[in-house]
This record gives sequence, C-alpha cells and structure tokens, in this order.
Amino acid sequence: MSSDIQTKFDFIKANTSKINEVDFENLTFGNVFTDYMLVCDFKNGAWEKPVIKPYEPFTLDPSAKVFHYGQAIFEGMKAYKDENDDVWMFRPYENFSRFNKSAVRLCMPEVPEYVFIDGLKELINLEKSWVKKGKGNSLYIRPFMIAIGSGVIAQPSTQYRFCVILSPAKSYYSGDVKVLIADYYSRAANGGIGAAKAAGNYSGQFYPTKLANEQGFQQVIWTDDATHTKLEEAGTMNVFFRINDTLYTAPTSDRILDGVTRKSLIDLAKREGIAVEVRSVLVDELVEAAKNGSLKEIFGAGTAAVVSPISGFQYKDEYIELPKIENSFSAHLKEKMTNIQYKIEEDTFGWTVKV
Amino acid sequence: MSSDIQTKFDFIKANTSKINEVDFENLTFGNVFTDYMLVCDFKNGAWEKPVIKPYEPFTLDPSAKVFHYGQAIFEGMKAYKDENDDVWMFRPYENFSRFNKSAVRLCMPEVPEYVFIDGLKELINLEKSWVKKGKGNSLYIRPFMIAIGSGVIAQPSTQYRFCVILSPAKSYYSGDVKVLIADYYSRAANGGIGAAKAAGNYSGQFYPTKLANEQGFQQVIWTDDATHTKLEEAGTMNVFFRINDTLYTAPTSDRILDGVTRKSLIDLAKREGIAVEVRSVLVDELVEAAKNGSLKEIFGAGTAAVVSPISGFQYKDEYIELPKIENSFSAHLKEKMTNIQYKIEEDTFGWTVKV
Repeated sequence: MSSDIQTKFDFIKANTSKINEVDFENLTFGNVFTDYMLVCDFKNGAWEKPVIKPYEPFTLDPSAKVFHYGQAIFEGMKAYKDENDDVWMFRPYENFSRFNKSAVRLCMPEVPEYVFIDGLKELINLEKSWVKKGKGNSLYIRPFMIAIGSGVIAQPSTQYRFCVILSPAKSYYSGDVKVLIADYYSRAANGGIGAAKAAGNYSGQFYPTKLANEQGFQQVIWTDDATHTKLEEAGTMNVFFRINDTLYTAPTSDRILDGVTRKSLIDLAKREGIAVEVRSVLVDELVEAAKNGSLKEIFGAGTAAVVSPISGFQYKDEYIELPKIENSFSAHLKEKMTNIQYKIEEDTFGWTVKV
Repeated sequence: MSSDIQTKFDFIKANTSKINEVDFENLTFGNVFTDYMLVCDFKNGAWEKPVIKPYEPFTLDPSAKVFHYGQAIFEGMKAYKDENDDVWMFRPYENFSRFNKSAVRLCMPEVPEYVFIDGLKELINLEKSWVKKGKGNSLYIRPFMIAIGSGVIAQPSTQYRFCVILSPAKSYYSGDVKVLIADYYSRAANGGIGAAKAAGNYSGQFYPTKLANEQGFQQVIWTDDATHTKLEEAGTMNVFFRINDTLYTAPTSDRILDGVTRKSLIDLAKREGIAVEVRSVLVDELVEAAKNGSLKEIFGAGTAAVVSPISGFQYKDEYIELPKIENSFSAHLKEKMTNIQYKIEEDTFGWTVKV
C-alpha cells in the first residue's frame, strides 16, 4: 500500500490465501469471496478509520437494527482485467453517488468518497490475482451498509457498518428467460424506497418470483402498483423493449432504480445510431406490438449479465413468444459494452476507471 | 423445565444474571434485554432443536442474506404480571399466525407452533422475575426471524434463524402527539409487503418521519400511495378516528397491517356500546369533520402504548388542533384493555394466555 493510503486505511494481513482452493472455471454467482474485505464503522456521529482485513464473520447483537428494521443498502458493481493485466472498474462514481442517495432515503449516514472510491481501489488492487482475464471473467464488487446499533425501538440506528466484499464471477448463460408480467404483486410504492438499493426491496420480490417460477417463468416484469398497466422493471434489472427499431425504457422515478447499466445502454445505443425513447411502455401496448409483429426484443439490463434477452412473456392467461431475431440490438449492445469494460475497444465515454 | 419441554428444547444455563444491574424505574424502551433468549435455526429444509440460552451476539457471514436482501420479519407482543404473580401473554396465537403469514410473504419457512408458542411460554417462565407487577409495567417480547444463509445472489436464503428476545418495559407518557399527513411519501405498495411485519417496511419510514420530526411532528399518518387521499396508518400503529360518536378505522389490506391491538379495540369498543365502522376515511373527510366540529378524537393503536392519542394534524399547509375532550373513547378503551391485560377485570374474550 502507498504511504498515503496507509494513513487513511488500517491494514490487517491475512495469514493464508484461499485462492488456490477456488475452481475459477466453475464459479456459481456470489458464493466465493476473496481473502480481504473493507470495513468502516460509523459511531458517535463520525466514520472511524476504515480497515482492510481478512474476510471474517460479523458479531452483532440480536437486537441490531438491521435484523429488525431493515436499515441496509448495497451496490452491485464489477471490475474487469484487460490484456495488460490492468484492472478496471466500470463507472464507480455512479454507484458511489447512488449508494449515498440510498443512504439518505434510508436515514443512514453518507459514506465519504475516500472510503468508498479509494477503499475500492485499495481493496481490489490487493486482490488483483482474483480477477481473471478474458471476456466473461470479472470481479463482482458488493459495497453495503447495515445498521449495527442495538435496541428494538423502531428508530434509525446511531451506529452503522460500511463493508465491501469481493466475489470472482464468470459469465453464465441464463438459458431461455420467460417472464410473467405482474398483475397483482408489486415491487415498489409511489413515495416509497423503490429507487433505493435497499435490502427491503429485494425480499419482497422473492415470493411473487417463486410463484412465477412455479408456473415456469424465470422472472417477473414489475408493473406500477396502482394500475398494473405500466411496465417498470424485470426482476432485479431495468427493462428495455424494442418496438420496430426504437428502444423504449421507463423513466426512473421513486419506484424505479436508476440503473448504471440502463443509463450506459441508453448512451451507447444513441452512439450506435439506435433510437431510444425514455417513456413508460404500457402492457396493452406491448401485447399489441407483439401481436402485430412490431415487438422485436425485450431485455433486462443490469450489472450481473449486462443484458439478459427475454424470449417471451405471459400476461394474464396469454403467453406470447418473441420471434428469433438476427442482428439483435441486445447482442450488439452487449458486445459493445463488454468491449469497453474489457478495454478491447476505446472507452470514448470515460466510463472505465483504473484500479 | 418440565421433562416434556426438555425433550423439545435444549437449555444452556447462564452463569450470572444481569437483573440486579437494571433500574426498573427508569427503563427506556427496547434497550435492556433479559438473561436468556430462544434460538431455533432452520437448515437443510428443517427446523433444528430450539435452544434457550444466555443472551449473546450472533456471528454471521458478511454475505448473510439478511444484510443484503432484507429477508427479516418480526412480531411485537407483551406479557403482564397480575397481582397473584402470574404472567399472561395477550393473544399470542394472533401474533403467531401473523408471523407465519409474514414468513410466507417473505418466502421464509413457517415456524412450528411448539417453537413459537411453547418457546415463548418456557422462555418467559424462566424470566418471570423480569416482569414487574403494576399497570404500566410489562415484558416486551420480540420474536423475529432472519435469513442467515450466505451468498450475494438475490434469491431466498436456505438457512434461517428464529429468535425471541425479551425486554422489560414501562409505560411512558408520549406527550402531545402531533402528526403530519403524508402527501408524498408512502409506507406500502398495493401488492407489496405492507401487511407483513417485514423489516423493510420500517426503514423506509425513517426518513419521512425524520422530515416530519424536523417540522415539529412526532409521527406521520400514512396515506395510500396511489392517491394520498385515504388515511391508513399512524407511524408504526393502526389509526382510529372518532367522528361524532362513531369510531372509524381502515380495513386491513395488503398495504395495512392486521394489528392485534386494532382488532382487539374493535371488539372491545363494540362490547362497550361504541359504534365502530371499518372503512377508509378520506383526508378531505377528516379535514371537513375537524372544521365542522364532528371530529372528536384520533388515536394510534399498537402493542407499545395500546392507544396513543393524537392532539392535532397537519395536512399540506394547514395545522388543525383537536379539541380537548372529556370521556374520550381512547382513554376508556385503554383502561378497559389494560384491565384485561393485567387481569384486573374478567377477560370475557379469552384473550389472555397464562405463561
């Protein structure tokens, strides 16, 4: 570590590394973690000195507020290794900014930039050997913050823990993704926390998703909770619709997450000469477009898979399969995006940040 | 412990008790816990043998799903000691039933009755000396369940922990409670998890409540998220309105918690000859009733305070103070309810269950 960093971060060395026990060819997502984590606690109204230390369990009182009131937020990001063995993060300032927006909405303290951004750089730099070269290989980065203060009164905690853990990841083929359009369950309320990456937004999706799984669908496309007529997100991803040669995606709102992949795809599509309209797409409009043949593609957009093509959708009693398509926008955009992420093509946007 | 119980529960004895260090006259809510807790883990598709053991911290992996996806539910209940030193729970089967409804909605396993109900009885029986006699004194009971499985993929956990912790409580005078009627922020979505006692429902309220506090209001009255015209809950309580001599409270729904105090107050009011109508009250209706003098009382209903009278409300730019009232329904119902809870009057409903 540089001396500048040593003054900002404490460091506790691990005695051993787990890296030789890991089968990098057969990784399941999010189960293997690297040797180190970054931890920074907030107490007495201030952030303590962050520490990079061996990955180890947390010890928390049973009354810790994260267990009772869900004061917990996170981010999902990735780092990629180029052919020169340099490691690059993708738009980390976007995640940093969104993390602190989530913090404000959940009544948690904002994390300082040096803790989040410099902390990420230091931690990932230390764990460079966990990032493998080659498209598809990446390091999944999980910054998160939890309320660790004790006491079962329903009030914001006074103590918090910010932590970053890292997990090596491989690209995976998700198979045919069929989705169910929600006509009863919802993800987020107007004036709620849907735009925050808050822990509570995710657990609420598990049961409706399980019901969809049981009917043979891999994901749910969420609709607005008031009318169930507007298409909003796909599972835990933003969603794009291609009708004729225009891409549509819903505007962000307090119900819809301001996804980094979503906003990057919008910019990339425009650069590639693809028309993009940011507006709500109605369920009826989608069904009609599917029936008259103008609906060409649907895909989810998120950090994990960049784009996830959707092969068909069920709405109420009707299942509509999308036609197979050549020269799909989703495949083209994924190719271009990953070329930027892996430094294969020039990053004209300035999105990549070297570790 | 009885031999029957010994076969169902493991028991680890505490070396010492903290009880002599506790100032029972000056308790703040939810900060002091008794010597023992009940813990029961769910692994490999089954509940393990529950154990009553000394209160101690949990050790959890940083990737535990409760930290990332908010898979966490709880209940709030109380036990009371009567003049014969017997301890009584109030309608525990209602909390047990609601707990398992919350579990289903959050895709968590249902807790068996012997773990929840018999567990509560055994645990509270062991901690009887922590329950003090006299109206206002009580033992606050916090059953909760968290997802303890590790891994940062956004899917339900396969491992869970059910736990019960106990906290001695004193009644407190909450002072003048002025409330702000929500016209932007919301607590719950249609088709969401508002009816579950899910951790994520609470953290989402902290920020809007903080904004209300800063304007001089102690609580927020939540409205429906789609139109903000229907009055739904007050803070973390259900809410009742007395217009002329009728009590109104909103019907339960997937946005509104099926409160045990709420449903008990409805039954009790009817027995006391008070007219009760379960229907949505509109904000406009409330403002009009306040202005024409027919609005007599507003009160929250919940386990902590039974009823919490509200002295006035702000809606948009207008603050309306309620008139002081003699022979209030809220005071009468609180008196009757606590008389049942402390076994001062006969429990004609069969609500109290001896530990």
